[in-house]
Amino acid sequence: MSEGPVRIGVLGKGTVGAAFAGLLAERADAVEATTGRRPEIAGVLSRSEGDFSEILERSDLIVELIGGLDPARAYVEQALRAGKPVVTANKQLLAQHGDELFAIAREAGVQLRFEAAVAGVIPIVRVIQESFGATEISRVFGIVNGTTNFILTEMASTGAPYAEVLARAQELGYAEADPEEDVNGADAAAKMAILARLAFHTPVSFDDVVYEGIETIQPDDLSYAKELDLSLKLLGIAERRDGGISVRVFPCFLYGGHPLAPVGGPFNAVMVEAPAITEVTMSGPGAGGVQTASAVLGDIVSIVSGEAPVHEPVVELGVVTDVSSSFYLHLEVADRPGVLARIAQVLGDNGVSVKSVVQRGIGDDARLVMVVHECLESRFAAAVEEIARLDDLRSPPRSIRVIEEEEFG
Amino acid sequence: MSEGPVRIGVLGKGTVGAAFAGLLAERADAVEATTGRRPEIAGVLSRSEGDFSEILERSDLIVELIGGLDPARAYVEQALRAGKPVVTANKQLLAQHGDELFAIAREAGVQLRFEAAVAGVIPIVRVIQESFGATEISRVFGIVNGTTNFILTEMASTGAPYAEVLARAQELGYAEADPEEDVNGADAAAKMAILARLAFHTPVSFDDVVYEGIETIQPDDLSYAKELDLSLKLLGIAERRDGGISVRVFPCFLYGGHPLAPVGGPFNAVMVEAPAITEVTMSGPGAGGVQTASAVLGDIVSIVSGEAPVHEPVVELGVVTDVSSSFYLHLEVADRPGVLARIAQVLGDNGVSVKSVVQRGIGDDARLVMVVHECLESRFAAAVEEIARLDDLRSPPRSIRVIEEEEFG
Repeated sequence: MSEGPVRIGVLGKGTVGAAFAGLLAERADAVEATTGRRPEIAGVLSRSEGDFSEILERSDLIVELIGGLDPARAYVEQALRAGKPVVTANKQLLAQHGDELFAIAREAGVQLRFEAAVAGVIPIVRVIQESFGATEISRVFGIVNGTTNFILTEMASTGAPYAEVLARAQELGYAEADPEEDVNGADAAAKMAILARLAFHTPVSFDDVVYEGIETIQPDDLSYAKELDLSLKLLGIAERRDGGISVRVFPCFLYGGHPLAPVGGPFNAVMVEAPAITEVTMSGPGAGGVQTASAVLGDIVSIVSGEAPVHEPVVELGVVTDVSSSFYLHLEVADRPGVLARIAQVLGDNGVSVKSVVQRGIGDDARLVMVVHECLESRFAAAVEEIARLDDLRSPPRSIRVIEEEEFG
Repeated sequence: MSEGPVRIGVLGKGTVGAAFAGLLAERADAVEATTGRRPEIAGVLSRSEGDFSEILERSDLIVELIGGLDPARAYVEQALRAGKPVVTANKQLLAQHGDELFAIAREAGVQLRFEAAVAGVIPIVRVIQESFGATEISRVFGIVNGTTNFILTEMASTGAPYAEVLARAQELGYAEADPEEDVNGADAAAKMAILARLAFHTPVSFDDVVYEGIETIQPDDLSYAKELDLSLKLLGIAERRDGGISVRVFPCFLYGGHPLAPVGGPFNAVMVEAPAITEVTMSGPGAGGVQTASAVLGDIVSIVSGEAPVHEPVVELGVVTDVSSSFYLHLEVADRPGVLARIAQVLGDNGVSVKSVVQRGIGDDARLVMVVHECLESRFAAAVEEIARLDDLRSPPRSIRVIEEEEFG
């Protein structure tokens, strides 16, 4: 970029936009000291004010904080084609149209940066791209949605049901009025698609990610889990499996000794594993206006300083969907002889072995809660389907994945 | 840098040097894919082989893995003056001669990178310099020495005394044959000097750091601490205080809820605090040949990619030494009436207030273990000095700093 001030065009005027304007004013001196150029806002586009083409014309760099696919996508494309670097916090845009956008950026020879799109204030994008840019990453996983982590933490500590805790999260500003994308796992899935692309240098889009949310989690899953020293997280996992990759999001129990187990409330945490680094864990607040603005500002500093990371996928890796997992299984059973034996038989027939069992309650309250060892998910699903057909069950089986402690020795 | 392969001159042929050669061979394709240039080793200097001037002549970039001040300092200076970028893992060199070395690098217009010098595989240098380069960091602190963290973790879990655990750490390769710099805090102090320079953009050298080690920690400090839900870490803290900065290293208790409390064994962890980011915690293995080599390789990728972070200190901040801390105080007392009252009186007279007390044992085994609220360290020291002069004590008082839980709400 040339000399003189850096003129920044800001698209979007919500919470993050306002926080960004404030932070930029406050840190303009520091940015100038670091980069030699003073940042200034060239124009702000909101729903009611401003004209995109005009703002683009007088900006050196565009910050996209509108969210959603349209018109954000068109604006970002136009800016890149005009040779203007773009900083965005828009995870769905990158997860769904990353291939096209990165290709346009490469063709135009300008940077498209997006630290704020994943894991809030945790600089995971830079760390994967730059610090571990030449590292063969085997797995990236973690808690990448603060809303659901807040809800699960509250459910575990208060015993309150999902709907009640969600309402409280909305009151406190930890969940949006329309929480759909957060609670159903779509938000986390978009973030994991982005991280998988960076970690494995292969095109991954939102559609490649298998995801589940937390809407069906019951308070008693969490209370039984406590007895087994398990805590529940909505986990995103992107990993190399069988020569391809697997990218998934699901609620999952972690044993007490797991590095992610203590990450509570609206915090995010991401772990990166590779032979050459063993593992690195990064945690911090998942969102918030000023935190997102801070990540955006970091990207601006990098662009103005003239760094140029390469986003080109270098390999095509298959996406594996049937992988091995350990599971927690909750069964409301009839209180009659032989129930455990029949269920154990079904599990055994399907090659599923039991790690621990808790049997509780009598009569209409009898239930079996167990954790099974790692097995192919398709086998476990077949076993559960068979168990569901037994006369012994009073309600459908419920299952949740478990991360086995020994994986992280 | 120009086109063609990147010729790397390696100084040092120890564990890290060997790991680096192996990793470079393994990841040469990946480096070439990322940067467009293939890395190759131009020459290796060991105590018995190679000539520095010749290696420098045929290298594009120098990797310094010799350690120690001499001849490492002369080699790094010569390389920078010759316009060759340098990557080093040498914390004492940077902590003691950083001012001169960074000045030479700036003058020559070449990069001096050192991710491997601090916190092993955790990319804390890059995160502070680049992600948080325009952020007003208020505090950087953590566990930056893996040897001492391993020893403290073992002492806490086995109850064994310091000397015995140190010997075990040496057997397992977690402590060097000469562990002096690790256990007395000097290694952590050098790392904190480097982090403070980066975080606060001010010149900080090893001599500015007040440090203590873990040699005098007693097994019963650790067992009492368990009752108070405290775990002991050798903590490095660099923070803004009273318009200046304070950089210290000392053994310190953390309450169970603290994010650093679960960091055990040879792991490192660093927290960065700033208004705009709240806090970010990063943890991972503290050292190891391949981990250090991996950090070096990340720096090489950055240099070849053409990034250029600025290392120029922009402010001069005073170094504050008398700060406020909370303390654990262990007193072996005579079992006679009025002891607690007399001690409490001395503390009160000095403005030190007690948070919790455990009184244990009778006769020759009577002792008081207490935690006091935050107060100016000079006041606490005055109180302890006065207590030490009381007839009631059977041995000198022992005190250890405590991080109060509420600081990290």
